[in-house]
Amino acid sequence: MMKHIGSRENPAFKHWKKLAQSGRARKKQRQTLLEGAHLVESWHKAYGMPVCLLASEKGRSRVEVADWLAAGERQRVECVVLTDALFAELADTETPGGLMAVVNLPPVEDAPAVDVDSLLLDGVQDPGNLGSLLRTAAAAGCSQVLLSADCASPFSPRTLRAGQGAHFQLCLYENADLPAFLGAFRGISLATALDGAESLYATDFGEGPLAWVFGAEGQGVRPDVLAVAQKRIRIPMPGAKTVESLNVGHAAAVCLFETLRVRGLRTEDR
Amino acid sequence: MMKHIGSRENPAFKHWKKLAQSGRARKKQRQTLLEGAHLVESWHKAYGMPVCLLASEKGRSRVEVADWLAAGERQRVECVVLTDALFAELADTETPGGLMAVVNLPPVEDAPAVDVDSLLLDGVQDPGNLGSLLRTAAAAGCSQVLLSADCASPFSPRTLRAGQGAHFQLCLYENADLPAFLGAFRGISLATALDGAESLYATDFGEGPLAWVFGAEGQGVRPDVLAVAQKRIRIPMPGAKTVESLNVGHAAAVCLFETLRVRGLRTEDR
Repeated sequence: MMKHIGSRENPAFKHWKKLAQSGRARKKQRQTLLEGAHLVESWHKAYGMPVCLLASEKGRSRVEVADWLAAGERQRVECVVLTDALFAELADTETPGGLMAVVNLPPVEDAPAVDVDSLLLDGVQDPGNLGSLLRTAAAAGCSQVLLSADCASPFSPRTLRAGQGAHFQLCLYENADLPAFLGAFRGISLATALDGAESLYATDFGEGPLAWVFGAEGQGVRPDVLAVAQKRIRIPMPGAKTVESLNVGHAAAVCLFETLRVRGLRTEDR
Repeated sequence: MMKHIGSRENPAFKHWKKLAQSGRARKKQRQTLLEGAHLVESWHKAYGMPVCLLASEKGRSRVEVADWLAAGERQRVECVVLTDALFAELADTETPGGLMAVVNLPPVEDAPAVDVDSLLLDGVQDPGNLGSLLRTAAAAGCSQVLLSADCASPFSPRTLRAGQGAHFQLCLYENADLPAFLGAFRGISLATALDGAESLYATDFGEGPLAWVFGAEGQGVRPDVLAVAQKRIRIPMPGAKTVESLNVGHAAAVCLFETLRVRGLRTEDR
């Protein structure tokens, strides 16, 4: 039997509303909201069924939403239809497509490995930037991401949406001590810097694992983090007259994919 | 004499509010709002003084804001101090730093050149994505950008902010007929496609100008545009299991900077 909720006073609705709005609530409850069938599907592939599926009245007539509700009911997952107005209150997007899911946050591994390719993010506060950075890390085959304490929350609905499911194939470490990790890292660490001495295209990436560090828009990588990185890298920019630098995500994409290109060449050499 | 505005009913305030909120108003008035001292400075470098400088009561005590107001008054530019509440209503950011400017939109050139490096954007609707794409185009030295009719407005406050001043070193063509331009283009045109046959790293970019086409998130480049592009390019992604593709801006950054790298090599060869 499908549950219907039409009141703002419903305790379950109040709980979800808190998850939608408050990072503290998400952390305390170890739950978050996923928006849209694409994210729900990515979650399902990685972790199985969500705790609860939420559909809007309008959305439930759409084939992909109806399919998810049917699958949810078969597998005894709580399925709830919300009035369009209540659903819209939970959604971060204007057109969320009529489907959301409540999920338990994935468990965190004890400590990051110091001998695998890693992405380190220092103070990346924009949820959209953070999400698309995670997406790029996943696409580039980098499986471990460390976030400094002042990064945006990776499990906010907006960051999840920008990540397009990337979160679910990554090991994410929040509140990470970046200098300590870099000190222990068994490979080459690289940080982008506008006044970095070395061109990305002249850098020797070595044979071992790499730890790439990218910093906040504006400030860049903090001095105490920069101090422990082994290489300072600059991306040559012929057109940078008034443009200070690239968007942090764009810079990371250029660096991570250049690394892949060079490694590919090395593999071909053998 | 500095003007002060504290009423929502003030006609000038009403005019600026429309500019902040409505793409139609910006188009009709050929004006937009710039937020933050950095954007105002980039504008000033490219086009000279804005039509009007707006400061918040709190902001005007900050050195950089006070400097702009003093410069504005010296050059007989209208300078207005708004109450913090009114200022916040105009601002798109939560912390706009206390300075905004009203500017006339730059005039548009008649028609794009068909023999220079060009970036073509097909249906990029997210203002943040569009702005950071323009930033990357400018950093990569690409001076001409064509936008299909369904792209986000490049001169909305949010897109301007994400562009960080890149707008002012680019020639932007809105409502562009992308297939017609590609048909006339005197160089190689390339479009990214997930099922594109050619790897970015195996592509011959030739010697002439390049036209790169990037499409909307989700849909990608539309079939009628893809049909006239000479090459279909794919970025090899080792980690793409559940990640559909990169964020459109990240993909563009990888492609534009790879082009630069290859051209740099060619220059060194000579």
